[in-house]
Amino acid sequence: MIIQLDKDISTDQFDKLQEKLNSIDYKSVKVSTQFQDYIIGVGKKDFDIRAIGTMEGIKDIHKVSDAYKLVSRKWKVKETQIDLGDGVKIGAGAFQIMAGPCSIESEAQIESTIKHLVENGVQIMRGGVYKPRSSPYSFRGLGIDGLKLWYKHAKANGLKIITEVMMTEQIEDMMDYVDIFQVGARNSQNFNLLDALGKVDKPIMLKRGISGTIDELLQAAEYIFSNGNEKIMLCERGIRSYEKAYRNTLDINAIPILKEKSHLPVIVDPSHGIGVRKFVESVALAGVMAGADAVIMEVHECPEKAFSDGQQTLNYQESVKLIDQLKRTSAFRKEIGA
Amino acid sequence: MIIQLDKDISTDQFDKLQEKLNSIDYKSVKVSTQFQDYIIGVGKKDFDIRAIGTMEGIKDIHKVSDAYKLVSRKWKVKETQIDLGDGVKIGAGAFQIMAGPCSIESEAQIESTIKHLVENGVQIMRGGVYKPRSSPYSFRGLGIDGLKLWYKHAKANGLKIITEVMMTEQIEDMMDYVDIFQVGARNSQNFNLLDALGKVDKPIMLKRGISGTIDELLQAAEYIFSNGNEKIMLCERGIRSYEKAYRNTLDINAIPILKEKSHLPVIVDPSHGIGVRKFVESVALAGVMAGADAVIMEVHECPEKAFSDGQQTLNYQESVKLIDQLKRTSAFRKEIGA
Amino acid sequence: MIIQLDKDISTDQFDKLQEKLNSIDYKSVKVSTQFQDYIIGVGKKDFDIRAIGTMEGIKDIHKVSDAYKLVSRKWKVKETQIDLGDGVKIGAGAFQIMAGPCSIESEAQIESTIKHLVENGVQIMRGGVYKPRSSPYSFRGLGIDGLKLWYKHAKANGLKIITEVMMTEQIEDMMDYVDIFQVGARNSQNFNLLDALGKVDKPIMLKRGISGTIDELLQAAEYIFSNGNEKIMLCERGIRSYEKAYRNTLDINAIPILKEKSHLPVIVDPSHGIGVRKFVESVALAGVMAGADAVIMEVHECPEKAFSDGQQTLNYQESVKLIDQLKRTSAFRKEIGA
Amino acid sequence: MIIQLDKDISTDQFDKLQEKLNSIDYKSVKVSTQFQDYIIGVGKKDFDIRAIGTMEGIKDIHKVSDAYKLVSRKWKVKETQIDLGDGVKIGAGAFQIMAGPCSIESEAQIESTIKHLVENGVQIMRGGVYKPRSSPYSFRGLGIDGLKLWYKHAKANGLKIITEVMMTEQIEDMMDYVDIFQVGARNSQNFNLLDALGKVDKPIMLKRGISGTIDELLQAAEYIFSNGNEKIMLCERGIRSYEKAYRNTLDINAIPILKEKSHLPVIVDPSHGIGVRKFVESVALAGVMAGADAVIMEVHECPEKAFSDGQQTLNYQESVKLIDQLKRTSAFRKEIGA
Repeated sequence: MIIQLDKDISTDQFDKLQEKLNSIDYKSVKVSTQFQDYIIGVGKKDFDIRAIGTMEGIKDIHKVSDAYKLVSRKWKVKETQIDLGDGVKIGAGAFQIMAGPCSIESEAQIESTIKHLVENGVQIMRGGVYKPRSSPYSFRGLGIDGLKLWYKHAKANGLKIITEVMMTEQIEDMMDYVDIFQVGARNSQNFNLLDALGKVDKPIMLKRGISGTIDELLQAAEYIFSNGNEKIMLCERGIRSYEKAYRNTLDINAIPILKEKSHLPVIVDPSHGIGVRKFVESVALAGVMAGADAVIMEVHECPEKAFSDGQQTLNYQESVKLIDQLKRTSAFRKEIGA
Repeated sequence: MIIQLDKDISTDQFDKLQEKLNSIDYKSVKVSTQFQDYIIGVGKKDFDIRAIGTMEGIKDIHKVSDAYKLVSRKWKVKETQIDLGDGVKIGAGAFQIMAGPCSIESEAQIESTIKHLVENGVQIMRGGVYKPRSSPYSFRGLGIDGLKLWYKHAKANGLKIITEVMMTEQIEDMMDYVDIFQVGARNSQNFNLLDALGKVDKPIMLKRGISGTIDELLQAAEYIFSNGNEKIMLCERGIRSYEKAYRNTLDINAIPILKEKSHLPVIVDPSHGIGVRKFVESVALAGVMAGADAVIMEVHECPEKAFSDGQQTLNYQESVKLIDQLKRTSAFRKEIGA
Repeated sequence: MIIQLDKDISTDQFDKLQEKLNSIDYKSVKVSTQFQDYIIGVGKKDFDIRAIGTMEGIKDIHKVSDAYKLVSRKWKVKETQIDLGDGVKIGAGAFQIMAGPCSIESEAQIESTIKHLVENGVQIMRGGVYKPRSSPYSFRGLGIDGLKLWYKHAKANGLKIITEVMMTEQIEDMMDYVDIFQVGARNSQNFNLLDALGKVDKPIMLKRGISGTIDELLQAAEYIFSNGNEKIMLCERGIRSYEKAYRNTLDINAIPILKEKSHLPVIVDPSHGIGVRKFVESVALAGVMAGADAVIMEVHECPEKAFSDGQQTLNYQESVKLIDQLKRTSAFRKEIGA
Repeated sequence: MIIQLDKDISTDQFDKLQEKLNSIDYKSVKVSTQFQDYIIGVGKKDFDIRAIGTMEGIKDIHKVSDAYKLVSRKWKVKETQIDLGDGVKIGAGAFQIMAGPCSIESEAQIESTIKHLVENGVQIMRGGVYKPRSSPYSFRGLGIDGLKLWYKHAKANGLKIITEVMMTEQIEDMMDYVDIFQVGARNSQNFNLLDALGKVDKPIMLKRGISGTIDELLQAAEYIFSNGNEKIMLCERGIRSYEKAYRNTLDINAIPILKEKSHLPVIVDPSHGIGVRKFVESVALAGVMAGADAVIMEVHECPEKAFSDGQQTLNYQESVKLIDQLKRTSAFRKEIGA
């Protein structure tokens, strides 16, 4: 169960609530986020929702039978919207494109990319400064200095930044230079990192694990929310399957299912989702048509020379075409009532 | 290599061609279809394409490095269109919807379905009379009598019929009552059935195996084509994965990839592709946006009472909405140049 | 439920039983095998097992909650043993090795293989004369003539034959030359073939589908049994997974699970199970240790020259070593009470 | 390439080696472990191995074409043995059993488990004090206090401790109380954690990712080795597949393949590998027969009351039987020359 507490609930009222929960054998966890205070009750017995709901100091109470609670749509029917400031919003009807290179490589690359994005009306730039790589001998990113450099230019041009954080020790350093923290597929069940990101007041985009289930993704989001951060987005980026004709299997089914199970915005990553440049357009459009609130995609001035992921990265010309198609598709989808 | 033969190639010219192929150690297979005669040359050595191409009796010659040959787009860049007669065409720009119940159940059900489809401008009706079922104790379909009954009503209302054939012995009996033979996912590598369907002059819709690769699907289509039947459609119907939140994982990636690898039309089956009724709309629209030439979907007057697959079947009201959305989406996709 | 009927049940007794089943809304299917007559009752209501069990003409009655019935261990706790005659038995404590080439290629190959097997005490020879191949242009086997030739030599040397049947039309022709019909992974849900094999009195070895579930394998076996043939063996031959370091993922878990769910013998195929020659030994031994009643493996005088599957085929020297290890491992397993 | 450096290589000799590597466009990484200094050269050009091998200050040089280098068997044919002190060794012929509960729960549980293990000759105890849990509301372990308590008793009874570390911040605190650090499946690509564990002089047991490839496991091990720690063990614990009859699919194939690709010891985890208590015995024995150097398994006085993983945990009676069988199987395997 989820109990939304009144802002000014008294200690006495709170204690009475605890007593009540104890009396029906419910373990309770208090959650305080940027927006509200909650009690999450976890137990197995059936209970009289009104008997608790009418207690003083309580704003509302909901039964949530899912394993995840706070990220479930069972208690919050209205879609969550992430507001990045300056009018940049994601979800609940607001569609966004996040684009940029796999890795931040140089100042020249940053400048070129920003120019391209600004010209095409993209407001959020993606890029990696900490790169999870299968091999320890591969390029692992420019680190915090790269981020600061990028921030300087992005700020000057009104662009928002989304970038991956790989460990708790990096959070504080990165904090002032990031608009959205990305949790990568390999860290989707790094519970300590999720705990820590639940304690900051910045939006988090959580990628589904390489073979993560939809349920595991929602439970991972629950880690963040239950630590105090409600600003979460879920990202479908393809799962691992037996098929060898492409890199990952974009799980298009996950998009409408996540939208139904959760109130959080759902982002589609067509670049990793198929992993082959010439097919990115088709699956990006499919992703929007399936209901994604945003698209995150890899774009590079010269994909052939990218430090990483070049084989799935669009060049500027391809990107211009797709950005336009995506915006029109998002509008078209509303038009046909899908 | 694929060699297209002249219609009036002489025995002498043919023998010379064979000699030539023998001389470079190529095994050759002669293929005669409804439309043309071919020689498929299978070998490993490099060869001078012009030396063969300029021989008499030869219309054209193509190098095809794929394991499959005749279904490859490497020799036939133009998309294949399947013409069912009466103006009903699939592929190469012609979009179709195939709809109907999982199982043909009764005359009343047939009549009701046909009325619904005709009213909504659907020209192809799907339905099973031979049902592959996991358990021997489940309903296995009305068989040939059900098909004849169905045909009577479909014919009278100008509807085309697509239905599954499960074994070679059924082909002859079904022949006169079927517009498209469907090969189900469980028979996608039933090579004897594929051989036999290659010998009839009827369109075949071949479903991808339950865990079939894209390459295996194309090789299965090659069986049909190389036995003499060029009228083939490929159907993506979801693959088996670890995810338990739905029935199958619709492989949206397969749609653009099949379109690029092959000249054959690609059909999407959203009903099996996700297996949950309320999400069929989203993935059907995504499938069209990814490039599918047709949608095949399960519709029933009362899904709750369907003999099979009710959980993934739309009712008439849902179907009316989706048919309209699909047509508009197909048109929209062309409009944005996708 | 499974009802075992008395041999001499009267028509009147039978009709009364039917009435009784109808009265509790159970659909009933009569099954007559080589050994017994059964009624399979399929329904949802709970019923009084004694009320039926005490009716006249009934030998025994069992509740079986599994989706499969006759192949379940819930009604037949004793393991089934397959008797091939001449003292060659499989299951219920009797361990066997089946070995031979992927494809039967020539008389010389047959003779050489038989000599090798006889010298090493192997009593069952495997080999394919009808070969399911991904590509229509690959070698598809020597067919019935190859089988007859093989049979002549096998018979003369006291060897039993196991070989794959691909379609119902082949059964009659093959009947006299085969000791065990093999159903391949691609045909594991070819229900018409299973129906037909249920009507012959020959042992069947049923391979698990390429991505078949354990439940589907048991249901496929139920097709054979419910058509009248109790002589069935189940074969674990590796499933399809995302891993690329080998050909298939031998599902070692399936062995103890199949043994527990069913009374049928379980065979392990290490050759397809890993698909890499140098690792066949390790997984074959593991398979026996996990409880397999027999091993089926590919052996060829010169694997490098085999028409098919050479990369996973042992040569004679490797085979001699493994045959000895397998026999000792089977004995050792009993010794330690596993 | 891997270059083993002389202990007393001079600065001048080292610089010359660097120059040489630069001249052939090889990126070089210096690795200093507990045992040796290495240069890892990563590049694409072919090179004259003798021209480098004969330079002064170099002990040996090896070409390693695998993506992973130091963990490859291509340069170190001899199997690595992990020595925990007090005669407890793993690998290169030394077989071990690691047993204990999923979670450390209480002092009473620790004492009872230790008594059971000591009586049965088990020298390494497993148990979790930091528990990765899908849900933030589940029991997450007793933490460092639990570890200290456990250590006190283990030390007193001569038992070695293996337990999971989840984040870099925990390493220092845990250091004195742990004999083997375990990296869990969800952290198998937590590269920062791997980096950090490469900097300690304690053995690490690295679990394969939930859907990790064999190659990814070896690359993860390379992270540890290349940071300076050679004491690594690889653990096969089951992969995620479509099959629902059990929890994970124990990849028995991985055992001989890892043994061939790497010189590191390979551990099998039958408890997670199948996830169902009554089948743990069969797959544990299979794992040893396939070549595992050790078994890690869950044992609890009363599995039904375990805080976690009870459904896959053996009770003491089952454990006594299996420990004996495992030891005999390990000996038997050597006896038959497998």
